[in-house]
Amino acid sequence: MIMKLLEERIRHDGQVLPGNVLKVDNFLNHQVDPELMLTMGEEFARLFRDNGITKVLTVESSGIAPALMTGLKLQMPVVFARKHKSLTLVNDLYTATVYSYTKKVSNKISISKKFLGAQDKVLIIDDFLANGQAVAGLIEVCQQAQAEIVGVGIAIEKTFQRGHQLLKEKHIRLESLAKIAAFENGQVVFTDDSDNHVAADK
Amino acid sequence: MIMKLLEERIRHDGQVLPGNVLKVDNFLNHQVDPELMLTMGEEFARLFRDNGITKVLTVESSGIAPALMTGLKLQMPVVFARKHKSLTLVNDLYTATVYSYTKKVSNKISISKKFLGAQDKVLIIDDFLANGQAVAGLIEVCQQAQAEIVGVGIAIEKTFQRGHQLLKEKHIRLESLAKIAAFENGQVVFTDDSDNHVAADK
Repeated sequence: MIMKLLEERIRHDGQVLPGNVLKVDNFLNHQVDPELMLTMGEEFARLFRDNGITKVLTVESSGIAPALMTGLKLQMPVVFARKHKSLTLVNDLYTATVYSYTKKVSNKISISKKFLGAQDKVLIIDDFLANGQAVAGLIEVCQQAQAEIVGVGIAIEKTFQRGHQLLKEKHIRLESLAKIAAFENGQVVFTDDSDNHVAADK
Repeated sequence: MIMKLLEERIRHDGQVLPGNVLKVDNFLNHQVDPELMLTMGEEFARLFRDNGITKVLTVESSGIAPALMTGLKLQMPVVFARKHKSLTLVNDLYTATVYSYTKKVSNKISISKKFLGAQDKVLIIDDFLANGQAVAGLIEVCQQAQAEIVGVGIAIEKTFQRGHQLLKEKHIRLESLAKIAAFENGQVVFTDDSDNHVAADK
């Protein structure tokens, strides 16, 4: 249901740029639709309601809005990792290196040790899952903190890129609200569209 | 009321570091308390409810949480300006330079032209007002867009630094939820505390 809502929004307001880059800066990562974020947060909270989550974890900046609404609905604090161009070793931080394929730069992300520990059950939230570098960095800081990773909630997943496989290999539960299977002629094809295609072919 | 709530939270969870830096990273700008953000958003929405706001504007990353909740309650979109280390002139962006006194670096902030225009009535939201550099940058992009600035909503204001005066000189309405008048012996003194002191002295 939320998946349908988000997919329709992507179809209506998303823009597919050359190189199959999906731009959703009018409702998700530059201009933000708060009501849509709340609906997404409600859905993530519903999906992970029974898992005893103690902390919602994301990385600045685009992950903050969906993570905040998820935390609101789970009644749990949200922590957002900070991005830094460079960072010398600092004692009171967990850090990981994240490579961005779109920006072609490496950033360090960091979380203060006081906000993540072995007692925590963590839900990782982010706006996009493509190559999975940001999520891998968040997983790494959770491991450093010996926190339990309960699952990953993603707004928009590109199922054909490496992030999906990466989480599968780590046996981490993945819940994505909109799943993009491919781009065809500048149009987004969602995984359920492909299912429909298969069904129609029968 | 909200002011009292936020002041108590600052007293309880805030940390005054040497150099009179107030650290509130356990509920506002690293770990975030979603319920508190919602209460703050409700208060900003109440204060500006009758002003026909069409857009809530902030800058990544710490402004996003309070701005998102304000947008939710005003039922209006939120736009967060992006920070860049450097930025060559780009046609479709409004940009301004912001100097950070705490980090001692200049950043450019930018907003896509498609999300701000002459028809907009803007409420600027941010987590802190000290020297007012970030808010000044946001005002500058609004002016470039010929958008009307209805007011500025701040979570924590340090009334003794330049930001307050800067907004007063520009005749821009300022609403701050917690107002710090001074730091004394590592403790926060709020403006209403000072009022009480004055009253007690009479």
